[in-house]
Amino acid sequence: MDNLLSQADCHVSCPIKKTAEVLEGKWTTLIIRELLPGKKRYSQIQRALEGISPRMLASRLRFLESVGLVNRTVYATVPPMTEYALTALGQDIRDVLQAMAKFGEKLPDPPDPKRS
Amino acid sequence: MDNLLSQADCHVSCPIKKTAEVLEGKWTTLIIRELLPGKKRYSQIQRALEGISPRMLASRLRFLESVGLVNRTVYATVPPMTEYALTALGQDIRDVLQAMAKFGEKLPDPPDPKRS
Repeated sequence: MDNLLSQADCHVSCPIKKTAEVLEGKWTTLIIRELLPGKKRYSQIQRALEGISPRMLASRLRFLESVGLVNRTVYATVPPMTEYALTALGQDIRDVLQAMAKFGEKLPDPPDPKRS
Repeated sequence: MDNLLSQADCHVSCPIKKTAEVLEGKWTTLIIRELLPGKKRYSQIQRALEGISPRMLASRLRFLESVGLVNRTVYATVPPMTEYALTALGQDIRDVLQAMAKFGEKLPDPPDPKRS
């Protein structure tokens, strides 16, 4: 495992680079986090992520679908209902988020915007 | 640990969010990856990361310094030499990158631009 971190250069197929390219967009990690416990409707994800715009959320979900991490299911109800769920590959990202959670506990809290 | 992934909402102090805010900029993860084996000069980092612009690299290194993950040391040689090293906190991000490396092995290779 450690050899993955000590390669001399970062090639096209570097696995850290591939994961970074999936996760580095703003909000992406947090959208995956919302889906880890199970499938959710668009509106549920939006409510959970304070500050995300509908356009950004739609764009990120499309991207996650395109890279095979998220499945979208549309139900032919009136009005139609759309549900999002992690694929098996998407579920595998859990370990990354757990490591991020553990590391984040060591980071200072951001300044509270309501207090400044 | 698992409760870190199952909170109902993502609050200001959510540890995954704090880590995401540090890592989500393009190139950030790969710069940290270059510094994991030990300190490096600016030019060494730039050579290792094909395609990064000098301006982007300088900006990311300043950011990583500002959040306490990287130390910068300037040596009064002629010409001056600048070295970057991970702080103790920065070293702790190793587990996140290891999880990213493991996950990335499951992702398909990106299309080779030289072949398209």
